[in-house]
Amino acid sequence: MAKRNLYLTNVPVDEALARFMAAIEGKSECRSERITVTDALDRVTARAIYARLNSPLYNAAAMDGIAVAACSTAGASETNPVTLVRGRDFTVVDTGDPVHRPYDAVIMAEDVQEVDDDAVRIREAASPWQHIRPIGEDIVTGEMIIPSRHVLRPIDIGVLLSAGITEAEVLQKPRVAIFPTGNEIIEPSEIPKEGEIIESNTRMFEALVREGGGEGTRFDTIPDDPALLAEAVKTAIDQYDMVLVSAGSSAGTEDYTAAVLRQLGEVIVHGVAMKPGKPVILAAVEGKPVIGLPGYPVSAYLAYRNFAAPVLAMLAGRRAADYAVVEAVIARRLVSSLKHREYVRVKAGSVDGKLIASPLARGAGAAMSLVRADGFCVIPQNSEGIEAGETASIELIRPLADLDRSLVSIGSHDIILDIIADMMSAQGFFLAGTHVGSTAGLAALKRGECHIAPIHLLDEETGGYNTAYLRRLFPETPISLIKGLGRVQGLIVQKGNPLDIRSVADLPGRRFINRQRGAGTRLFLDYKLKEAGIAPHDISGYDREAVTHMTVAAAVAGGDADAGMGIASAAAALDLGFIPLGNEEYDFALPPRFLELPQIRQFIDTLKNPAFHKRLEEIGGYTWDASGDVKDVF
Amino acid sequence: MAKRNLYLTNVPVDEALARFMAAIEGKSECRSERITVTDALDRVTARAIYARLNSPLYNAAAMDGIAVAACSTAGASETNPVTLVRGRDFTVVDTGDPVHRPYDAVIMAEDVQEVDDDAVRIREAASPWQHIRPIGEDIVTGEMIIPSRHVLRPIDIGVLLSAGITEAEVLQKPRVAIFPTGNEIIEPSEIPKEGEIIESNTRMFEALVREGGGEGTRFDTIPDDPALLAEAVKTAIDQYDMVLVSAGSSAGTEDYTAAVLRQLGEVIVHGVAMKPGKPVILAAVEGKPVIGLPGYPVSAYLAYRNFAAPVLAMLAGRRAADYAVVEAVIARRLVSSLKHREYVRVKAGSVDGKLIASPLARGAGAAMSLVRADGFCVIPQNSEGIEAGETASIELIRPLADLDRSLVSIGSHDIILDIIADMMSAQGFFLAGTHVGSTAGLAALKRGECHIAPIHLLDEETGGYNTAYLRRLFPETPISLIKGLGRVQGLIVQKGNPLDIRSVADLPGRRFINRQRGAGTRLFLDYKLKEAGIAPHDISGYDREAVTHMTVAAAVAGGDADAGMGIASAAAALDLGFIPLGNEEYDFALPPRFLELPQIRQFIDTLKNPAFHKRLEEIGGYTWDASGDVKDVF
Repeated sequence: MAKRNLYLTNVPVDEALARFMAAIEGKSECRSERITVTDALDRVTARAIYARLNSPLYNAAAMDGIAVAACSTAGASETNPVTLVRGRDFTVVDTGDPVHRPYDAVIMAEDVQEVDDDAVRIREAASPWQHIRPIGEDIVTGEMIIPSRHVLRPIDIGVLLSAGITEAEVLQKPRVAIFPTGNEIIEPSEIPKEGEIIESNTRMFEALVREGGGEGTRFDTIPDDPALLAEAVKTAIDQYDMVLVSAGSSAGTEDYTAAVLRQLGEVIVHGVAMKPGKPVILAAVEGKPVIGLPGYPVSAYLAYRNFAAPVLAMLAGRRAADYAVVEAVIARRLVSSLKHREYVRVKAGSVDGKLIASPLARGAGAAMSLVRADGFCVIPQNSEGIEAGETASIELIRPLADLDRSLVSIGSHDIILDIIADMMSAQGFFLAGTHVGSTAGLAALKRGECHIAPIHLLDEETGGYNTAYLRRLFPETPISLIKGLGRVQGLIVQKGNPLDIRSVADLPGRRFINRQRGAGTRLFLDYKLKEAGIAPHDISGYDREAVTHMTVAAAVAGGDADAGMGIASAAAALDLGFIPLGNEEYDFALPPRFLELPQIRQFIDTLKNPAFHKRLEEIGGYTWDASGDVKDVF
Repeated sequence: MAKRNLYLTNVPVDEALARFMAAIEGKSECRSERITVTDALDRVTARAIYARLNSPLYNAAAMDGIAVAACSTAGASETNPVTLVRGRDFTVVDTGDPVHRPYDAVIMAEDVQEVDDDAVRIREAASPWQHIRPIGEDIVTGEMIIPSRHVLRPIDIGVLLSAGITEAEVLQKPRVAIFPTGNEIIEPSEIPKEGEIIESNTRMFEALVREGGGEGTRFDTIPDDPALLAEAVKTAIDQYDMVLVSAGSSAGTEDYTAAVLRQLGEVIVHGVAMKPGKPVILAAVEGKPVIGLPGYPVSAYLAYRNFAAPVLAMLAGRRAADYAVVEAVIARRLVSSLKHREYVRVKAGSVDGKLIASPLARGAGAAMSLVRADGFCVIPQNSEGIEAGETASIELIRPLADLDRSLVSIGSHDIILDIIADMMSAQGFFLAGTHVGSTAGLAALKRGECHIAPIHLLDEETGGYNTAYLRRLFPETPISLIKGLGRVQGLIVQKGNPLDIRSVADLPGRRFINRQRGAGTRLFLDYKLKEAGIAPHDISGYDREAVTHMTVAAAVAGGDADAGMGIASAAAALDLGFIPLGNEEYDFALPPRFLELPQIRQFIDTLKNPAFHKRLEEIGGYTWDASGDVKDVF
């Protein structure tokens, strides 16, 4: 077999970063440039900025009224009003107008009584300097307005301009060279053939660099040729402040980035004790940081976040991002290795005032888990994991306020949940769905870990849906059901049904793909198999589990299975054949006290919305007679 | 007197916004545009985006190793290894490589024993589909990746591209026309003459609009002429989504914006119950929002924040900003009117684990208070204020994490605090200074509201500085002193000292400006006056108070005072005359337990830093023999 570049190290994350920082620190100086203040939003000051003008520029009226000499008002009172003559004793001022000697006080308009066009009467003496903003009250020429290493905000721009400053010395944005590598890489505009991968990570890095205050430059993909990579990095080191090499950092047979960087400079760390993201390379070439990032999207993101982001912040003169950390109850057991720190993506939401975090898919390739995530549950390197129901710290990647607007749904999957999520998102609410099947959803609901549980549970005795099940499962607690949809359940088969599969009786001898234990669809299959007198072990693939209707459909579409059980809409979405086996009711169970929550009201409104029904009609396979109706089970 | 446009209303803030939103809602539709995904960072999706490709695209190896047919490994065990032949029984795969039929499982490289170039041995059977990422596991063609009204992040860009999406339908950025108005307005590049104001607010608005996801267009300043303003607004309404009119919304004699807007459309609200920011105009012209914003910088900022920002968010399809709210102890009594909601700018910092908020200058013109602020203490409309030591809610405008890196200083003022703040800022720490004078600073220290109190307190009996005072004030508690600087105290006079002022004995008959009660400098004056046998009331201006050395110097420089007491460096900064009257010690008192805090260590490092001494030398008037030394007072 080909020689593999096995990891040399398993360095703890913090130690890896410290060693890397130490190797590059002080070697990259922050250059500065002079720019106009109006272009300086979000730039970092290179040095302190001092006022060139006083503010106010002169003694100024702080009120609308009249400017007077305080001594000329002495003795004025209710019983002894004093009359003042325009031009001699006073002048009219608006707020902000200059006040000149001999005037040294302002009397508010409401305290001034008009006598005629040229005279006024006052009934209270003015004290010297009342209602006058003295010159330099806010800031005096030469005082510091903004310190160094300050990120300029709109208010800073306003104040700098009013203090007579039109240019500012700011740090240059660090320049980051980004190299995609690999023979299998194609451009986003191309249609990938098997074995090809669309180059998306470097575009993500480009955006991350921009967010971090740098300027990223993407180069063309470098094919798997060490000489070409060496040449590219060598050239870039002269002109850029940091170099990112995308992919080529793992232990695959064609990875050579570490070897190339070892030739050009020093590899500080190759392989850190984190997951995903282990195969990161931290190197210094001519004292400049060069980072080899893994190819899997989640690994790439986490390696960037833990290593490239803090280095970029240092180069940009910014403080590294502070992630908000909250405590949340972990809804599912998380087993982790003592060998590494693990970043588990979680969906989070506030249920009954308690923050609940549901783990998402954990694989390094599960990029959607990052898109869906509200944060990371970071399992420390020395921990074996977290039990369900335990509290753990979550590093948020979404504003905490969003989580209060989340409807937490755990249970059965249907593709219409996406449509509801979309329609709720347009109204500023979030549907945070985790797909674990009907029965696991009800268990989560019982533990108080979600607002609603989408279910479709056939009661074999009564032939009815959901209510009988709920009655058994919640004997003591009141429970409600928001009616969802009628939908058709059946067998998803190849287009045109070439194998002529007509019912579950035709499944033996075929390659089947099943749903996970506890899924309503699996229970439906079991019911149908029992009805037909077929044993599960007669069906090849009965144990092969997928967790959504769409992955079942994808397996059939990909030719890896001849049939799977699922809903009509999933078959339609991938243009597959469909053998209807029965109608079922897909509803949402919840404790009645949640019915008044704004996100639940929005959810019910969406279910009743004609625009929603129109989208269901377009997809096909659904009925919505009672959608959004609420039914008390007790 | 000229006719004044007195406020018509005092509408509560929330009601004003609700009425305004109701008047414009639904009339401004969000237009969308199609852009390339790589340009879509931070843009808002107009509609949901669905996957065009499966991810993974094919059944892919999830590990480096060999792909096999699970059935060919049946029965393999430690005692009964199975030998597999390359090409017939297995093929070598790297992570991510496609796995083809008949292969349906992957065995990890570490579990494979090489026999020769063409054969391997395994000691455990593979189960079907192990270590394979099935097609569509992460996302299936047609599934929703991103919902509508989602702000696109770097990870979204990566996932969209890998799902075959290269273009996205996003909302257009709302276009905002921004008009400066007023005859007194000049451009930032010009030098203001008395009565002129540098136009800075519209530049701040432009930056705020950009931050809020809009595109601001600034127009030339419109002179005070209703016809010109009417023409400008009328033209803009056709081409822009929102119009901001800067200044011209208050009750001054030349304000006419409300009248103009009443002609063109409907003025919903003129005058809201908030301070600063009361004279805001909320109008709808052809259903589009037109906002008249007050001229004072703080009023302008708060009016924008409360009214323009939420409207822009609505137009941009974004949720309005959520301000982090924290509870903090208010360090100084805040009296407020029942008539309005008041936004008091505060500096905040964490002292002994308790968040302390010190109110800054409250005037609408005090723009520096906004620059310095960490947040707003919002005093509700129905509240008379907050007592010192009470807890109140603070809307933060800085990250909470910054406050943990703040050194809270309350006490005497010296311009070198700016230099220390600058040098600490470059190291990622913040010096949050409030200038209330030495004795008020020690009182705050005693109440646990600051880390350090800068003081310079002469003991009249011993003639010594600071220690004797501290011993008296803290009889029970251990207290430490970080030695600061020696500095020269004296009389700040006009350049060249034309009035020939030589000592405090020459002050009677001159116009004096004093420091506030409790300031060490005022105590020093009182000591000198007593020594010279002069009564305070013999000095005109003894009661005229300024709170910093620089405002004293500015008053002298502006010709409003003949003399003031202050430090040499303040006189030097404004090129004034200076009559030295004595050397004093400016030190920092603190409880010894704070000495180990990182921000205090950084503070001490700064005091000892030769670069700091160099800057002191440039300013002049200081000595630093013991700077940074720590002295236990007990």
